[in-house]
Amino acid sequence: MIFLKDNVLLERDLTFEDIKPRLLGHWGTCPGLILVYSHLNYLISKHDLDMIFVVGPGHGAPAILASLWLEGSMERYYPQYSRNKQGLHNLISGFSTPGGLPSHINAETPGSIHEGGELGYALSVAYGAVMDKPNLIVACVVGDGEAESGPTATAWHACKYIDPKESGAVIPIVHVNGFKISERTIYGCMDDKEMVALFTGYGYQCRFVEDLEDIDADMGNSLEWALREINKIQQAARHEKPISKPRWPVIIMRTPKGWSGPKKVEGEFIEGSFRSHQVPLPKAKSDEAQLRDLQKWLKSYGADQLFAEDGSPTDNIKKIIPEKDEQKLGQNPVAHDPYKPLKLTDWQKYSAKKGSEMSCMKAVGEYLDQSLVDNPTSLRIFSPDELVSNKLDAVFRHTGRNFQWDEFSQFQGGRVIEILSEHCCQGFMQGYTLTGRVGIFPSYESFLGIIYTMMVQFAKFGKMAHEVPWRKDIGSLNYIETSTWTRQEHNGFSHQNPSFIGAVLNLKPTAARVYLPPDANTFLSTIAHCLRSRNYVNLMVGSKQPAPVFLSADEADAHCRAGAGVWKFASTDDGLNPDVVLVGIGAEITFEVLKAAELLRTLEPNLRVRVVNVTDLMILGTEGTHPHAMTKADFDALFTEDRAIHFNYHGYAHELKGLLFGRSNIDRATVECYREEGSTTTPFDMMLMNHVSRYHVAEYAIQGGARVNEKVKMDMGKSLAEVGHMVKKCREYILANGKGEFLPVASPSL
Amino acid sequence: MIFLKDNVLLERDLTFEDIKPRLLGHWGTCPGLILVYSHLNYLISKHDLDMIFVVGPGHGAPAILASLWLEGSMERYYPQYSRNKQGLHNLISGFSTPGGLPSHINAETPGSIHEGGELGYALSVAYGAVMDKPNLIVACVVGDGEAESGPTATAWHACKYIDPKESGAVIPIVHVNGFKISERTIYGCMDDKEMVALFTGYGYQCRFVEDLEDIDADMGNSLEWALREINKIQQAARHEKPISKPRWPVIIMRTPKGWSGPKKVEGEFIEGSFRSHQVPLPKAKSDEAQLRDLQKWLKSYGADQLFAEDGSPTDNIKKIIPEKDEQKLGQNPVAHDPYKPLKLTDWQKYSAKKGSEMSCMKAVGEYLDQSLVDNPTSLRIFSPDELVSNKLDAVFRHTGRNFQWDEFSQFQGGRVIEILSEHCCQGFMQGYTLTGRVGIFPSYESFLGIIYTMMVQFAKFGKMAHEVPWRKDIGSLNYIETSTWTRQEHNGFSHQNPSFIGAVLNLKPTAARVYLPPDANTFLSTIAHCLRSRNYVNLMVGSKQPAPVFLSADEADAHCRAGAGVWKFASTDDGLNPDVVLVGIGAEITFEVLKAAELLRTLEPNLRVRVVNVTDLMILGTEGTHPHAMTKADFDALFTEDRAIHFNYHGYAHELKGLLFGRSNIDRATVECYREEGSTTTPFDMMLMNHVSRYHVAEYAIQGGARVNEKVKMDMGKSLAEVGHMVKKCREYILANGKGEFLPVASPSL
Repeated sequence: MIFLKDNVLLERDLTFEDIKPRLLGHWGTCPGLILVYSHLNYLISKHDLDMIFVVGPGHGAPAILASLWLEGSMERYYPQYSRNKQGLHNLISGFSTPGGLPSHINAETPGSIHEGGELGYALSVAYGAVMDKPNLIVACVVGDGEAESGPTATAWHACKYIDPKESGAVIPIVHVNGFKISERTIYGCMDDKEMVALFTGYGYQCRFVEDLEDIDADMGNSLEWALREINKIQQAARHEKPISKPRWPVIIMRTPKGWSGPKKVEGEFIEGSFRSHQVPLPKAKSDEAQLRDLQKWLKSYGADQLFAEDGSPTDNIKKIIPEKDEQKLGQNPVAHDPYKPLKLTDWQKYSAKKGSEMSCMKAVGEYLDQSLVDNPTSLRIFSPDELVSNKLDAVFRHTGRNFQWDEFSQFQGGRVIEILSEHCCQGFMQGYTLTGRVGIFPSYESFLGIIYTMMVQFAKFGKMAHEVPWRKDIGSLNYIETSTWTRQEHNGFSHQNPSFIGAVLNLKPTAARVYLPPDANTFLSTIAHCLRSRNYVNLMVGSKQPAPVFLSADEADAHCRAGAGVWKFASTDDGLNPDVVLVGIGAEITFEVLKAAELLRTLEPNLRVRVVNVTDLMILGTEGTHPHAMTKADFDALFTEDRAIHFNYHGYAHELKGLLFGRSNIDRATVECYREEGSTTTPFDMMLMNHVSRYHVAEYAIQGGARVNEKVKMDMGKSLAEVGHMVKKCREYILANGKGEFLPVASPSL
Repeated sequence: MIFLKDNVLLERDLTFEDIKPRLLGHWGTCPGLILVYSHLNYLISKHDLDMIFVVGPGHGAPAILASLWLEGSMERYYPQYSRNKQGLHNLISGFSTPGGLPSHINAETPGSIHEGGELGYALSVAYGAVMDKPNLIVACVVGDGEAESGPTATAWHACKYIDPKESGAVIPIVHVNGFKISERTIYGCMDDKEMVALFTGYGYQCRFVEDLEDIDADMGNSLEWALREINKIQQAARHEKPISKPRWPVIIMRTPKGWSGPKKVEGEFIEGSFRSHQVPLPKAKSDEAQLRDLQKWLKSYGADQLFAEDGSPTDNIKKIIPEKDEQKLGQNPVAHDPYKPLKLTDWQKYSAKKGSEMSCMKAVGEYLDQSLVDNPTSLRIFSPDELVSNKLDAVFRHTGRNFQWDEFSQFQGGRVIEILSEHCCQGFMQGYTLTGRVGIFPSYESFLGIIYTMMVQFAKFGKMAHEVPWRKDIGSLNYIETSTWTRQEHNGFSHQNPSFIGAVLNLKPTAARVYLPPDANTFLSTIAHCLRSRNYVNLMVGSKQPAPVFLSADEADAHCRAGAGVWKFASTDDGLNPDVVLVGIGAEITFEVLKAAELLRTLEPNLRVRVVNVTDLMILGTEGTHPHAMTKADFDALFTEDRAIHFNYHGYAHELKGLLFGRSNIDRATVECYREEGSTTTPFDMMLMNHVSRYHVAEYAIQGGARVNEKVKMDMGKSLAEVGHMVKKCREYILANGKGEFLPVASPSL
């Protein structure tokens, strides 16, 4: 697949003409992957298993694609890759060519649930996939390169989050071939004793597959062993005699990198060296000796014994392949069409009374409590030990944390996983989601960026999956960000980072959804929508502190549907012809806008102020850039065509400005947002330091209003001086008194 | 520090008045940190050590601040915290109050080199700090919460990247107190055998500190043991008898969370439970019983025996503190004033001939080769096994990879660390940089986002350090991004992600620097500048493929100084009054702009085209937003005040639009960029699919020109149809022929 564009069954001697013009692909990992794949299929047939395969070394796509072709999974989804000579020709010649099969495993690869580009996540994805699927086994190959990554290094502990009664099992296979792209691997330098010690420490029992003389027996026996050990642990748990600290099996496969490929080229070792990582004969297109080496190498597999006259695999090969299509690794429906909608109760039952005070997270916790009860095997929460801190602990009323190790930590059936590894949380959620269930990942706002690139890889998988007709819908990834920078005045500067919004904004608009609900009812409406939605990356940003409920349940519903709206109760323009539009995006930030409007009624009673809240960030982009983007007409109706607008925004400035770019007459807009300011201080000081306080908003309003309205201009100087004075006094007051959390407007002491 | 605002020496019974209004801080980890700190100081005194302390559980700031006060390091840098009654009052009452001492360790904490907010990075930072400092020992506490994170889980292997001949040593102390915020920890559920197995597997030898009856003897003896083991390994290596697989020491400290604090409150266990994590007596301000418990607890330490009449620590305490200030953990100069500029050769010696072809990375590799030779103990490259792939392998001419484990992997003195963990690379670089040296992190563009939040934490540390007068300059963090999306057509969609630019843009403008040099000479000029710079986060994005050299060395120098400029050789406006300005930002993207200009000379000879290249992204933001931001006058001179502009940009659209927001008359600008398109295809197809190809640029130019110029308008329809046709034909051609890498303009076959 790396080399040939023709003569793929070697029916005649190879010529330069048979070689592709550009040699692309990764050989080194392939022999090991082929070995594993073949044995897995045999194992499935023999034991009637429900199994899928997660491949860490995703750049070994040729091995997987070849195996998929052999078992008929390619031809099922891609008729051009039929199991005959023409199909084989198409498979081999089309690999890694423009418009052809990609060189890394991705959503176009049948049976895959894991993007094969960025390394480190295979293991946690595999563990997430088996959760709540008691009969599923996920075989997972982890390369010794990938094993150096942090996310993999901690994911070995994931077996401690699997309850053998309710969940399936992972068979991890560590492929130690000793080399990365151009350097030895850490695992490759460790001897057997070190490996046994390490994996025993992680909580496994090891078995080495390393008998190069009879690798099939070694691998076959080892997989049988693994299956027996899994069965033992599961049966014990399922007959109410759970084993404490069960030692799950792990297979360490030591085979040479590029095994069975060229031994030496131009005096350098290839097999068993990093030089086999990609193309072992890079000059095959032009160098006669390399072409001969290639022919010798490819002939060594005895293609004439493996393929029938018509190019189809011989019965000898076919007989290790599971008979039932849905049991083949490339066709198990759990990877392609797994999704069932959740049973969701009416969120309005949990809504708070308009005018009361309610924490968004408290309200959401109540709703999630019921949702977990109603969906006992298809909804989970993954959190880095922050659920209580984030005030979502109502969920513990009917469930627990699913952590299984010593006798004090066996909360069977818990719907919550709390591990202080965002990478594990994300990997679990990906595996869980891609096998048809729904996950929620609540996090401190500042630390969700830890899994930024994982989320991007998932979204890329999702985009390609969308283009593949046999992949059906899946649930969305649901992120709740709370403990936001606005209230991290006490934990300080390190806990302030709203950048995940920008991360989601960079995704394809088909998947990207960002919500900043301003109160508990809008948050409830939002999460209910997100849990019902499909194929999105939903980011919900909200407050955990008790805060005013501005909208009734019905109003919240309408507001969320529209994505934004005029808040008439806070406006002074009677819905008509304002001098200035003040926009709040984000809970605390919107509160300051409301207070600014209140202040302006005293300070500049003639100024006609319209207050707008945006809860769906995506409405702002110019028409056509996002499915939610407002039409020009709607945008201008809401924000006016030519009045001054001030945006008080929760995130970073560039992203909001980027969204607004192209809206009519946008020079009239000013933007304030988080500007990376604020060590240990008070919540209100956070507003002051980042220029999003009520006083700053008022200042912008007066200046903005003045630009369009001569009557304001007359008084402007005095009013501006007053708000400037208030800012100054507030900072002094806070530093002297340490208060200011709920500063009243125009407090007498100021 | 968590509780008291007065009566800090308990000279009278506590009253509610003595209690702070808001109780903030983390108690649980503090007793362990105090224990370690005290023993380290004693160890330093006894053995005349050069040592610093990296504290993973950074929220244990009270323990560290108290220790710093005791040793006089607080009073040295903050006179208000003098070692007397008033100073103690200020320390205790000021902790975690607005404008006071933060609750997490940060740059304001004397002796620290690690932001104490986000968890996971202490260990790799510690290892980075000892590199090339043979006499330095870094004691590093890792909490059992932090230990669950991926970055920590893999950083245990970091001892394999320490050459005991040239570098110092880390004493890792794993603090297993069993609990996180509200859940048990993984390590806390592992017994001694599991822990020994795990750390033996990682390559260490373990010693447990757990004798609660005589913890001082246990800790003291264990630290002495660790020192002896380190000495043994270092002496062997330094006398040419290096030990293969040296077993570095690790200390496992098992002490109860919140040890010595309240045992039980309201019937719930506090000591030895997660409930001691933050404030163990949350109602001390209002509940009489809790106030009494607080007094009893604080009295139990016998303050009257620990402080003299004037509030200073007694001699008994002082005598374990190192006599020399620079040996105290809070005053070691390596943490505060470590930086020496690099010896850097003239980059122009490595410049390529104008008009030739040269890979940016090849040129940079040559320059770095010499730089590494010239700075044998103060410059290192940290890379996730991609140096060769990124074509920087010229550096291996005089050095090797520093990997130390079995007998085949001992490249003593190598200046390059290649571990397939971006987290380790980043942590090493941070530790290395903060102790005065300079690091370079080359990476595939798409995978640098893996360490996004680490970089942000570092930048936050840097911002605060800048506000602290006793912290002096440090080198910059230097990131080279190559193998960019423009040439990841073969690795595919998963390898395309230019988001790190946006990550740097969100930093404070004082630190954020982003460069996209268009050719080898501008890249050389840029890296030479970056290696000389201080306190920045430098991101350099460039090409590894051979590409045209547009500018001579002198021209490159001037271009980089200006940050942007008109490329007259490609323009048709004679520098005057253009109809349209075409802007390229990024190497391959700029090439397309040049080709578009060439095409337009045929297609629309009357159109006056100005070609601009931007190499320093920061010039674009509006005046005053960044030190490099162009004045309005300069901006308008370069981009004109009112002509159409088309930006062909390497990154994501939102960030560029965000930068441009506020520039005069910006409605006239159009932007194209990477739009998340492109699986396996050709480089030119990447341009087409993302609408940044020469044809797309030409189309924008014609449309833009038409808006300002009636003579173009007349022909517009025909020209537009022609370029549209070219796009279509190109895609067809590529899919049929798989070429298109260096498509000539208006190729006859099209």
